[in-house]
Amino acid sequence: MNRDLSYFARDLQELASDPDLIRWLTVLPGQLEKFMLENEHGDFGRWFKHLDKIARYRSSHRNFSSYVEIGRDDEISEGQKKDLANSLMQYAPWRKGPYRLFGIELESEWRSDKKWDRLINNIAPLKGRRILDIGCGNGYHLWRMLNEGAAQVCGIDPCTNYFFQFAAIRTMIENISGIHFFPLALQDLPDSRMFDTVFSMGVIYHQKSPIEHLEKIRKLLVPGGQMVLETLFVTGDSSTVLTPEDRYARMGNIWFIPSIDALSLWLRKTGFRDIKVHNTAVTDSSEQHATGWSCTESLDDFLDPENPKLTVEGYEAPQRVIITAVSP
Amino acid sequence: MNRDLSYFARDLQELASDPDLIRWLTVLPGQLEKFMLENEHGDFGRWFKHLDKIARYRSSHRNFSSYVEIGRDDEISEGQKKDLANSLMQYAPWRKGPYRLFGIELESEWRSDKKWDRLINNIAPLKGRRILDIGCGNGYHLWRMLNEGAAQVCGIDPCTNYFFQFAAIRTMIENISGIHFFPLALQDLPDSRMFDTVFSMGVIYHQKSPIEHLEKIRKLLVPGGQMVLETLFVTGDSSTVLTPEDRYARMGNIWFIPSIDALSLWLRKTGFRDIKVHNTAVTDSSEQHATGWSCTESLDDFLDPENPKLTVEGYEAPQRVIITAVSP
Amino acid sequence: MNRDLSYFARDLQELASDPDLIRWLTVLPGQLEKFMLENEHGDFGRWFKHLDKIARYRSSHRNFSSYVEIGRDDEISEGQKKDLANSLMQYAPWRKGPYRLFGIELESEWRSDKKWDRLINNIAPLKGRRILDIGCGNGYHLWRMLNEGAAQVCGIDPCTNYFFQFAAIRTMIENISGIHFFPLALQDLPDSRMFDTVFSMGVIYHQKSPIEHLEKIRKLLVPGGQMVLETLFVTGDSSTVLTPEDRYARMGNIWFIPSIDALSLWLRKTGFRDIKVHNTAVTDSSEQHATGWSCTESLDDFLDPENPKLTVEGYEAPQRVIITAVSP
Amino acid sequence: MNRDLSYFARDLQELASDPDLIRWLTVLPGQLEKFMLENEHGDFGRWFKHLDKIARYRSSHRNFSSYVEIGRDDEISEGQKKDLANSLMQYAPWRKGPYRLFGIELESEWRSDKKWDRLINNIAPLKGRRILDIGCGNGYHLWRMLNEGAAQVCGIDPCTNYFFQFAAIRTMIENISGIHFFPLALQDLPDSRMFDTVFSMGVIYHQKSPIEHLEKIRKLLVPGGQMVLETLFVTGDSSTVLTPEDRYARMGNIWFIPSIDALSLWLRKTGFRDIKVHNTAVTDSSEQHATGWSCTESLDDFLDPENPKLTVEGYEAPQRVIITAVSP
Repeated sequence: MNRDLSYFARDLQELASDPDLIRWLTVLPGQLEKFMLENEHGDFGRWFKHLDKIARYRSSHRNFSSYVEIGRDDEISEGQKKDLANSLMQYAPWRKGPYRLFGIELESEWRSDKKWDRLINNIAPLKGRRILDIGCGNGYHLWRMLNEGAAQVCGIDPCTNYFFQFAAIRTMIENISGIHFFPLALQDLPDSRMFDTVFSMGVIYHQKSPIEHLEKIRKLLVPGGQMVLETLFVTGDSSTVLTPEDRYARMGNIWFIPSIDALSLWLRKTGFRDIKVHNTAVTDSSEQHATGWSCTESLDDFLDPENPKLTVEGYEAPQRVIITAVSP
Repeated sequence: MNRDLSYFARDLQELASDPDLIRWLTVLPGQLEKFMLENEHGDFGRWFKHLDKIARYRSSHRNFSSYVEIGRDDEISEGQKKDLANSLMQYAPWRKGPYRLFGIELESEWRSDKKWDRLINNIAPLKGRRILDIGCGNGYHLWRMLNEGAAQVCGIDPCTNYFFQFAAIRTMIENISGIHFFPLALQDLPDSRMFDTVFSMGVIYHQKSPIEHLEKIRKLLVPGGQMVLETLFVTGDSSTVLTPEDRYARMGNIWFIPSIDALSLWLRKTGFRDIKVHNTAVTDSSEQHATGWSCTESLDDFLDPENPKLTVEGYEAPQRVIITAVSP
Repeated sequence: MNRDLSYFARDLQELASDPDLIRWLTVLPGQLEKFMLENEHGDFGRWFKHLDKIARYRSSHRNFSSYVEIGRDDEISEGQKKDLANSLMQYAPWRKGPYRLFGIELESEWRSDKKWDRLINNIAPLKGRRILDIGCGNGYHLWRMLNEGAAQVCGIDPCTNYFFQFAAIRTMIENISGIHFFPLALQDLPDSRMFDTVFSMGVIYHQKSPIEHLEKIRKLLVPGGQMVLETLFVTGDSSTVLTPEDRYARMGNIWFIPSIDALSLWLRKTGFRDIKVHNTAVTDSSEQHATGWSCTESLDDFLDPENPKLTVEGYEAPQRVIITAVSP
Repeated sequence: MNRDLSYFARDLQELASDPDLIRWLTVLPGQLEKFMLENEHGDFGRWFKHLDKIARYRSSHRNFSSYVEIGRDDEISEGQKKDLANSLMQYAPWRKGPYRLFGIELESEWRSDKKWDRLINNIAPLKGRRILDIGCGNGYHLWRMLNEGAAQVCGIDPCTNYFFQFAAIRTMIENISGIHFFPLALQDLPDSRMFDTVFSMGVIYHQKSPIEHLEKIRKLLVPGGQMVLETLFVTGDSSTVLTPEDRYARMGNIWFIPSIDALSLWLRKTGFRDIKVHNTAVTDSSEQHATGWSCTESLDDFLDPENPKLTVEGYEAPQRVIITAVSP
């Protein structure tokens, strides 16, 4: 597989074909080349070799309606499955899923389909839309978006192992288009009104500057475009914002967890309108738990064993909310 | 007066002479030239002409111990005073003071000496220190810092009329050195540990990203250097942060007003230590009020006429706190 | 017609599809957007309107073997021809040709086919090659290159009216691909070995730095790639280089006209090998003369009327040579 | 000695004090910091240690009227002389001189005083002028310029060992100002009319683009400022320019050696006026020869032993000319 810019050849062609997305090309190819050059050393070579191996298993069978399923159980032998599973495991941990690949059940730490089920009926239909998913992880939701008939689905996430997880999945599908993963951070995108829907799920509480996160999203949306914001929240009024002293539910790098009222206020103040709170949920262990593919501690370890309403650090246990808002 | 980079000749010489500040020259002269070029048109020409006029009134008499006083009442005639006052008025509104210039009482909206009196005994002595004052306005406090024996005092503020107010004051003093005003924003400074003390007074609640404001200050302080943070605060616990829907006490551009506990948490989280809360105060009209030199509405108009414990918008009336913290 | 980056959508897609040319995308889209933005005002709007008009005349008939011929005489009416000719005339002067468009004889100042005939049998066959033509004018030779079976033909020329002349020609052809005009200068290209053949015709004597011109071309050629260099030369040995005091044959902006030996030496010194001198010719008025479409004085005026061996300035009359050389 | 930007503290202060040179600060400090950072490793550390040693020998005695002489023979002991000579030898080869340092005769390959004697009476008096010397080597001529009463003398040369040679000389002098060496190339300077006289000696034939070299100098000169151009030339008319196939008199990196007529034409064409040819000379071995301090082969080896009118490569033996020209 090409380890230079031509790895992204098909992606760039598709962006060039789209009158709204073509402006992204003024900065994107240079960033992608830099990503490839900066990672020439280290694990990159080995990871690309496994990608070459994975690319030998390719199928026209696909189903993205719940599991992201590619290939049938009987399309490859048991020995081939072992080989494929071994290559896929190189990119562990697999946090987002579930995937079923030639019958292999790739069980991830998160059952991301549960989050999807909570939101899909609450957002503007994705059919025909250009979509950005910020912090998309390995891209599980990108496949669900494509399944809804989106015109172009673009995920960004700076983590290198997510880049390879996505690449592995995509390379197994024959004739696939309309779906892209770029190893970028949000600020790498140009200020251009390119997207009809932008997803920010599980991202805003990791931002040092949530206000600038929201403003950047507003600048990326076409007029009337929709943001789908999924986040942790805390109980409280419009002046309540939790900043954990250190970790929160064992997660590092958390800066601001607002109440729903505080978050709504931020949205109004950054210029969004039609702000709607759709759904709140407490994460339980059916949605998040350690698996052989994720290889890490998971939810059970994050809560106070004596009081599951608290995190191990003594904060309110995680609650999550989905909010939609419209860019003027 | 020179309207190109040589206006700043003396400032640049002094920075070049200081082993800690010299690194600023890697970016500063280019930024200053840009400021001069971008402002070639508009009021700039007229304002520089008045600066030339003001420069004719120069005295060796100075006293910065309470009023910033330059020249004596009897050094110039009444006609000259009128002429000088007229030129100074061109740069109105004068928000920070008070100044006494050749006997002219230049009464500003704020009695900034009151804030100074509250803080001076609570901070590390300024003698021999390199100091940065972020959002320094017309620079009133810079003179107070110089009076304490600071080695170099640098104020930054992007407002053009403050640039001229400071320039007017400085040009009236014979043989003055060690005090500088640069028309910059905080992010314009290079990440270099240049200062012994950094003041951030009345600035943090105007930041979209207060966390990054604090981190930038930490990066500008030498190890063991002190930040002096003065800000509005609200009553509450470590999860209380007020974001006003629109204006707060008639001020626009307010993003986050934290409680003292929340602010202390931010400081710990951005790496500061030795965090001390020194003083809280309610601003009253002896400290802030409209004057003939400030030409605007002032404090009396900002509070609810029926309940002075509330702002006109119904928020808690302004309270201010001084906190010091040390960079590791 | 789109007046933003999407005007170049098809071009960018084709470059993205080519493993050798894709690297150009790291800089090209930003340059093209800048070109479009900088020209928003002035004649640009009017010229794009005429392009929209011209785009109504589209044909599948094409023949690039001598005249660049598009459409047949009887495909459009006399009134339409008048309309089309009027729009084409907006982009005058037409220096390079000849073109025959729906029967309209577009006679250019130069019979560029004559130059082509002199060189085509002396260069490596163009079939399957990626080609760059530096200073391509309105792109007449690009069509001849495409006709030889080139894989991708790219012309660059910074002149805005050539951009429109090429755009007008291309828009009249149904389903055309593999041919591109970018409004750039040579130094705008990244140092990347992208091309199999690079043409520099009538360009090197306009360079202030012919050495750097040659070095840049060498860096753009794949190993073993061929440069086709066509230029004026003067009689003399390897130390003979004419720098005209002012104009030469009425042309301004002439810096160095070398002898063939001096030029060969430059080629060796800049790293080329297999240097071959193919053809020398004296330009006569059958090749260059004023026409109704070029609207300017032409060759007849450039020579001394009493001695056609001299230019009007008294220099040797123009002689031209074709040299090929290979990049190691 | 400081190995960061503060090594240049005094230089930057002096530039900041000069209304014409201050603009240089918009780019210079960043370039100097980069030079210091890029050279942190390798020989730099060792060379700076020797500079610290050399700095112990400091004198107020100086005489720049022929030899560049610093200190008297009897100011330091024989042991100290050995120590000093050893440190100076670290920066060998010493190509330009001669220097006499505390009685040590530092004999360089070139007797640069001979070139100086040929030109000093032919150029505009240097008294009170701001001067740039391009490719100044270790700066021998800078001292001669200072001796003529120049206001500010700036030399540039990208070679690291020349930087240390100059630094060594300057650090031995008490209270020296007005003389600067910056490790830069000509293109690093901003296009700003900063200098009254620019010297380009022994440099233009090393340029790939002599035209752009001349244009850059013209842009650096104040209106009416003088360029002093010293160069090799060849016999011939205005169309004679020698490009050596490989080396010329054993020198590599030679691109264009013009005749005097050709060079004069280039000067007119790049906008200079008052072009005067002052002096031509054949270099002989009294001016250039190998010494114990230069450690390399020298002139005797560069000429054809059987015919001293030819170089070893068979070209005309080196002749040099001094030309002055004025910037409009």
